[in-house]
Parts: sequence; structure tokens; C-alpha cells
Amino acid sequence: MKSADEMFLWNCWYAAAWDHEIGVGQKLARTYLEKPVLIYRGESGNYVALDDRCCHRAAPLSMGRVEGDCIRCMYHGMKYDADGVCIEIPGQEHIGSTHRVRRYPLVEKGHLLWIWMGDPDLANPDDILDYEPLSDERWTGLPEQAYMHYDANWMLIVDNLADFSHLAFVHTNTLGGSEEYAYVSTAQEVDQLERGFRFVRWHKDSAPPPYHQKVSPEGGARVDRRNDVRMLVPGVFFMETTFAPVGWDPDSGDFNGVRQYRNCQYMTPETRSTSHFFWNYLRDFRHDEPEVSISLRDSLLEGFMEDKVLIEAQQKLLEIEDPFQPRFLQADAAFSHFRQTMQKLINEERKSWPPASKPIRNQIL
Amino acid sequence: MKSADEMFLWNCWYAAAWDHEIGVGQKLARTYLEKPVLIYRGESGNYVALDDRCCHRAAPLSMGRVEGDCIRCMYHGMKYDADGVCIEIPGQEHIGSTHRVRRYPLVEKGHLLWIWMGDPDLANPDDILDYEPLSDERWTGLPEQAYMHYDANWMLIVDNLADFSHLAFVHTNTLGGSEEYAYVSTAQEVDQLERGFRFVRWHKDSAPPPYHQKVSPEGGARVDRRNDVRMLVPGVFFMETTFAPVGWDPDSGDFNGVRQYRNCQYMTPETRSTSHFFWNYLRDFRHDEPEVSISLRDSLLEGFMEDKVLIEAQQKLLEIEDPFQPRFLQADAAFSHFRQTMQKLINEERKSWPPASKPIRNQIL
Amino acid sequence: MKSADEMFLWNCWYAAAWDHEIGVGQKLARTYLEKPVLIYRGESGNYVALDDRCCHRAAPLSMGRVEGDCIRCMYHGMKYDADGVCIEIPGQEHIGSTHRVRRYPLVEKGHLLWIWMGDPDLANPDDILDYEPLSDERWTGLPEQAYMHYDANWMLIVDNLADFSHLAFVHTNTLGGSEEYAYVSTAQEVDQLERGFRFVRWHKDSAPPPYHQKVSPEGGARVDRRNDVRMLVPGVFFMETTFAPVGWDPDSGDFNGVRQYRNCQYMTPETRSTSHFFWNYLRDFRHDEPEVSISLRDSLLEGFMEDKVLIEAQQKLLEIEDPFQPRFLQADAAFSHFRQTMQKLINEERKSWPPASKPIRNQIL
Repeated sequence: MKSADEMFLWNCWYAAAWDHEIGVGQKLARTYLEKPVLIYRGESGNYVALDDRCCHRAAPLSMGRVEGDCIRCMYHGMKYDADGVCIEIPGQEHIGSTHRVRRYPLVEKGHLLWIWMGDPDLANPDDILDYEPLSDERWTGLPEQAYMHYDANWMLIVDNLADFSHLAFVHTNTLGGSEEYAYVSTAQEVDQLERGFRFVRWHKDSAPPPYHQKVSPEGGARVDRRNDVRMLVPGVFFMETTFAPVGWDPDSGDFNGVRQYRNCQYMTPETRSTSHFFWNYLRDFRHDEPEVSISLRDSLLEGFMEDKVLIEAQQKLLEIEDPFQPRFLQADAAFSHFRQTMQKLINEERKSWPPASKPIRNQIL
Repeated sequence: MKSADEMFLWNCWYAAAWDHEIGVGQKLARTYLEKPVLIYRGESGNYVALDDRCCHRAAPLSMGRVEGDCIRCMYHGMKYDADGVCIEIPGQEHIGSTHRVRRYPLVEKGHLLWIWMGDPDLANPDDILDYEPLSDERWTGLPEQAYMHYDANWMLIVDNLADFSHLAFVHTNTLGGSEEYAYVSTAQEVDQLERGFRFVRWHKDSAPPPYHQKVSPEGGARVDRRNDVRMLVPGVFFMETTFAPVGWDPDSGDFNGVRQYRNCQYMTPETRSTSHFFWNYLRDFRHDEPEVSISLRDSLLEGFMEDKVLIEAQQKLLEIEDPFQPRFLQADAAFSHFRQTMQKLINEERKSWPPASKPIRNQIL
Repeated sequence: MKSADEMFLWNCWYAAAWDHEIGVGQKLARTYLEKPVLIYRGESGNYVALDDRCCHRAAPLSMGRVEGDCIRCMYHGMKYDADGVCIEIPGQEHIGSTHRVRRYPLVEKGHLLWIWMGDPDLANPDDILDYEPLSDERWTGLPEQAYMHYDANWMLIVDNLADFSHLAFVHTNTLGGSEEYAYVSTAQEVDQLERGFRFVRWHKDSAPPPYHQKVSPEGGARVDRRNDVRMLVPGVFFMETTFAPVGWDPDSGDFNGVRQYRNCQYMTPETRSTSHFFWNYLRDFRHDEPEVSISLRDSLLEGFMEDKVLIEAQQKLLEIEDPFQPRFLQADAAFSHFRQTMQKLINEERKSWPPASKPIRNQIL
């Protein structure tokens, strides 16, 4: 079995949590890349991410107490500052230089908290893949930023999003609209990006899918539908969706009768076989109508559950001992490029980091 | 740990399902010998068994849709015929010769579906161990062909059936009737067959066991009981049970006051630690009385649950790290021969099949 | 991974059960040091501990039947005497010398049953760490001797008990009384014993902790509190707790206004990751008031559940692949000595016992 070191790309930003998940003085225990992490928000409002194991005996700091911007382990009372440095040991004067826990760079940007699990010296917040619509008043999102947990490797979710023909069969009556979609929608041309891919997929002169129909009943029986998709390392998905009158020219500048969505999805490995999944779905119409947000939330959730059931079944079938050799389709160009890109980055990273060293023997158990 | 290749005998027919489990247009996902299998029944009425993993991304075909005699994967819409050959890829013209899934030989015979997990070229339906009473009007069975799932290796169930002295202690008040049975019933002589064993065990001048007493109250307070048992590779059990007036001569041709049962049990490995168990219990009397079928079903089920609890506990005790060295009894002659026979067949099979090859690396996870 | 042989100290007495857990004719199935054991009490009143696996096919003897001082396996009826020797095989005359199961030395002493999992020739009941207050009328205990099951390695419970500063943070409102305790209670001096440690910890002129306050409300708002603690191989904990008027001199012989407790706790490995935990808490006051016993039971249970939640979380964090290197505190002197002592004893034991031998291959599964 691969070690966690080999499984994941370490030196990049991962979506860790929505900001609303952690209020001032609150804590969240969450695992990323098979490492247990405590995230808390100090009284100053700052977010902090630390190894969730007290350096003394591995007691969970997430069972500890937020004190100002510090966290106190509630086993023997060791207190750590926001850098993970121990600043108090009850009953002991001396504090050693190794009395500390690992701090992970954590940045709040556009309502998401982003964590860097690799070499902290390489962490540059400018590299965060911020999605502007999340912070832009012209776009109205779901009632709440959404989270799902997957019992599947995150790359299976990436695969899912890399080939939209699955809309026809998995989401026929929800997000897709028809099986026809897989056959007749304009063949996609995949742009191979340095750290991902992009494609545009048209479905012209077609019935709008149920999720859109419900919130846009006056949009007509036939529409042109355009999905403009980007997937970026390590698992960040952005999509622009446009429903327009049949025959619409996107270069015309005429947005009369056009309705648009902006969708972001973030796949972050929890372990090699489980994932965090964050998402929102924003629109440029009917802004002040909460029932539209609710309808879209329910439609998307219904559709995403269709994916989840299938992907988790896929995970189980890939975990059994009987080896499986995949056969490729033309539509796999996007995710094949993405997987190759990821593997190349992982290989490069492994050359220099983490440094070759014998694993530390667990000295407690 | 042994690989699945070494654990099981591959080139033989296994009981896979009762025919009533899969109606026309229906599907069943079931694992045999640690391999996931889809069984479905096409609109022509034919049964088909395929690898349950779509060749593209291992999505379960059992979540797919039966179309005529074909199955369509409901992930990206690939359609397979009854041979497992892909005949349609939505949005793609070309279909490669490797776009197929493994088909397993599957034959319906005597209300059972039989599957062949090994080399398909060696599969000969004439080798199926059909049990005639299942298709013979002179015998009336349970209200429904029965199935149980065991959290135990199938050979532990075989062991159980190879020594009837367990009737005395496990089934005292159900199928056995008395502890005396273990002490006084005629010592069995075991016929060592090429692919199994046979023995006859008499219990003369004894009280009939409760399960028979309930449906045959007029049979007398004392009976001669005769069990004629066969066990055959890989785990097929047939038993003829006769209750006759005390002193009855089986060669007399006189069946006055004699009542008989026919019992079949099929043990099929799901994994090395779980099993499928199919069975029926047929009688030659009170044919048109459904309450007799129900009484026998309930009695047998009660008895088989007594076995199941014990055998599953045995499985747990054999799985722990502490090694166990069994001590043999004289009564073990039957199952010792059976286990040796199985091991010899597995060893022979391993010489030529499957061909030595490096396992295919799982290219997805 | 370490084998069970390397994990545990074998040649010592372990607390196995309270005597009230097994009445005459009753049975208990319990695992110690990863070995399944049946304990039963024969009709003579004697307790017997045997390997829980019938020597024939590993059926659980704990599903068997107590007959006099013997146990009968209820699979094929083999009967074992209290030495684990098979004395009857139904239907078979000859009984071989290997038709036996392992007997483990088991001794009842002071309401506890003690088991010896190692070389029976070395088992000397005089080595049992009997706790006199359990059998002494001057001490009144809980309504019933108490048991808890831990999903954690037993040494994590030992660690917990080796540093009382955790009372301040884990048990602030139950057994501890204040966080101050960790800062101001007299620094402990640890006596390194040959097979354990001892320390005395004073907390002078302090508010009595809630558990004591509830049953001793007239004891005053401030007290001197003294804990005298011993921990002994393999995981036996004895504590004398004294609450006295502020300024009390323990050498004065004056016990006016003084109230004392006696506490025993026994940690016995079930497996490397789960433990048995036995305990009682006795007092020298208000003997005939059952509500005091109940109050103390509830308080202690509340406190021990605080430990259990934390220790089980610690276990999970120590089981993940990410290696953990503990950082030591001054207060770790006690458990560091204890762990070194245990490791030394295990190393010594491994030199001569068990004899180097290839593990017996499991011949059933």
C-alpha cells in the first residue's frame, strides 16, 4: 500500500472549511491528507490550524479550551499559542523548545478556509484559487455554503466532474434533463492547462433540465445550454452555466432572456478513501427570493446524492482484491490529463520533500 | 494471507441463486469467491452473469438498467450485451475490442442458477449436480426455496454437515431429538467418493425428533430413523431421511407407514469469511397442506439458526491471531476426506490455472 | 506490528473478573492478552479458566454446558474436566492425550479472580497483589464492585493515573475540584519501586472536590487533601486518600475530623487496543448509609467517564499512520519509570519464554 506521503500532493492549498463552520471561540476537528487537524478561531477572530495531538501524550487539542487566541489541552493543561508553541505547563517552570505542535498555514479567503499541509515555507496565499462570485453581490448563492462527506477517494469525484456525459444517465431527471445530452451535445474540446483542464460543452435547442425549469419556468420550452468548466489542482472545480434563447450568440453581448449560474466545488482528501466536498451554486437572477435558493439547494443536493451513491459504490468495487484495469473512452481526455498532471506534481514533490527519513517510531503504543 | 486464487476451487459449478430471486428484467448483485458479480434476467428470459464493474471506471453494472437482454451502465451509458461485449458508447463511434466485461457461465437447472467462476472453456453444464426432487412432483418443498447468509467460511458449514453427532447437542430440541443420538445411533461407515463422501446413519427404535413429530403426529412414539447423506465438491449436500416403523427393512419394498424427506443444501463462498447458503427440505406426504410446509420451514430455520450462531462464533475464534491446532475424532473421517479432496483439487488446478502472471495494478485508486 | 508475545508481560497475575460476575454453574467468556478464555464456576464452587476453543474444531466452550465441575462443548458433546482434560467423547471410546484444552491458573482472592496467562509452572498465588480493604469490614465500598470496558491500550490508563495534574483539567468539577490543583499542589516526589512507583501528593488548604463535598458536607470549606498512590506491574493501582482539617499532621495520630478513602483500580489488557478496567472506592465513614455508596459510585463513574472519553480519543490518534513523538514533562517521571520497568520485564521474559518456535499454522481456515 502506498504511504500517505506518496498518495497526496502536499505543497498546495486545500479547501478546509467554510468560514461559517467555526465561530469565534469555536473549534473544529477535521482530518486532511490522513493527518488530524484542529482548527479554531481565537477571540481576535483569527483562524488557527494545529496538529490535533498535544505534543505530550497525543491527547486531542480539539477537546481543549480556546483561551484568547490560544488553545489549552484539557488533559494536563498545556497551553499553546497560535503558532503551536507551548507557553504554559502547569506545575512546571521550564518549557523546552520541542514543546510545540505543528502549525499548518491557514488562510480565510472568499468565505473558505484554506489549509497548506506541506512545507510551510512554500505556502503563498496568492496561490489560493479564490472564486470571486462567492464574494460578489451580483451572485446569490444557496441558503448556506454546503458540505458533504464522501466515503470515496477524492479523485473519483474529480473524474465524475471531468466528463459531463454522466449528466445524461446519473442525473436524467435532476441536473441533466435527458439521455439525449450524452449523444447530441456538442463534442467537447478539452484545453489542457498547466495545472488542470477547461472545456466548454453546449447543448443547443434542448429542453431545460428540471432543476433550472423549477426556478425559471418562463424561460421557454427550448434553450441553448452552455457549460464552461475548469478543474484545477488539487481538486477545485469552477463552472459557468448559461441558459439562453435558442440560437443565442455568446459574443453578441446581448443578455436578454439569458440566465446564468456560477458553481464551485472543492474536493479535499480526508484519507485515501474518504473526502471532504464543499460547494455552492450561485445565480444572477431572482436575487431576493429565498425560495429560489432553497429550490436550487434541494435540486443540487438531490443530484449530488445521485453521484455520491454511485461514486461510493465505485470506491468499494475498487477496494476489493480483484484487480481492475480501466478501459478508456475518448471522453476521458480531461481526467486523464488531470491525473497525469497530479502524478507529475506528486513525483516532483517527492524528489525533494518530505526529506527521506526513517519514520519516527510511535513511542506510546 | 492466502490470495483468493489459492483459497478456492475455481473450475467447478457453484450454486449462485434460486431462480425465483431474479424475475425478468431484474438484477442481483452478489459476490462469489471474492469477485463481484451482476446477475440479471433479460427480456428473453435468459439469465446473464457479468463482472459487476463497468470496464470504464468500475461503476457497478448492478446499478445499471436492463435493456432487452443487455445491461446499460448508468454512469456514462455504456451498453453491454449478454456476452459482456460493449455495443454502445454514447457520444463515441469507435468501440475497442477490450471494451467488455468478463462474462461468467451461468446455467439454470432445477430452480437453481449455477455459476462457473473459473476458465469458461472448461464449463460443462452436464457437470452440474442437479437435485431431482426439486423438479419432481412427488416431492413437496418449503413455501419458498430458502437462503441464508453466513459470516463464516463455507467449509465450516461443510464440516458441520459431515458429522451428525452434532444433532444431539446443537439440535437436541429441534432436528436432533435427544443427546442419546450421539451415543447410540449406528456407527457410520463413510464411503470415500472421488469428489466427496457418503454415509448412512441409523437411529433405531427412538423417539422421533420434534420437527418430524409436529407434522407426523400419528407416526408412533418410536421409529427407526435413517439418514443417507452425500457431500460433494465444492459444497453440495444431499440427504435422504426416512422415518419408518421400528424394525423396518429398507430392502423389503414395503413403504407402509414410512415417511421420507429429501434435503439439499448448497454452500457457496462469498468471501473467505462469508458464505451463501441455499437449501430446501422436501417431503413425500401431506402434499397439499401448506401448513406442513410452513411447519417444516420454521423447524428447519430454527435448527439452522442454532448452527449459524455456533459456526459464526467458531469463525471468530479461528480468525484471532492465537494459532489453533485441531485435534481429530474418529467421526472426522468424512470431513477430513472432503478437505483433503478439496485441497488436492485446488493444488491441481493451481498448477495450470490461473496462469502465473503479475497482478494488474489497480490504475484508478 | 508487534506480535501478542512481544506486547504483553505474560508471567504475572492479571485481574480477570470480580467474583460476583460468575455464580455457581455460570460462565463468562472474556479475552485476556488477545487470547479467548472461558471462566466458569463449577458446582463445587471452584472457578476454572480454560482456552475458550474446544480442541476439536474451536467451537466456543463458553456456549457449552457446566456439568458438575466440568464443561461440555455443545457442538459434538466433548466433555472437559476442570484441568481442561477431555473425559468423554460421545460415540468414541478412545480419548487421546492431546484431547485437552489449555487450562489457565485462576485464583480467587479478595473478591477478585486472578488469571495467569503465562507459564503455569511459575504461577504462585502468593504473588497476587491482594488489596486488603476489599475484605476488611472497616471499609465500605460501592454498591457493587465496578467494571468498565475501554477501547484503549491499558497503558494509556496507567499513564493517566501516573500524573495527578490531570485531575485539575479532566476532572475539574468532579474528582479534581479546581484547576489550581495542577499549579499549587505539593510537587510530588516519585519513589521508584522495583515493580512500580509510589508518590504522595498533598493539596493543602483547598476547597474539597465535589465528589467528597457531596458525602461529607460538614467537612468544612477548606481541607488538607492527601493522595498516597501506588502503581504496580502489570497495571494495579492503589490509592489512599485523606481529607483532614487544614494543618493536620499525619504523624500526629489524631484522626479527629479526618475522613479517608481506599481506592483500587486494575487495568488488564483485553487486546493491544482494548482493556478491562476493574475498580472499587471504599470509605471509613457513614458505613451504613447506602445513599453514600451510591453518591460515590455516581461521582466516580462520572469522573472515570471523563477519562474514558479522552483516553479513547488518544488511542485513536495514536493508531493513525502519522507517527507521533511524545515530548516529556517533569511530571512524567512516574509513568516513564513504570513503562521502562514493564519493558525490561517483557524483554527478560522474552529471552526464555515463550520458547522460540514457529507459529502453528491454523489448520481449519
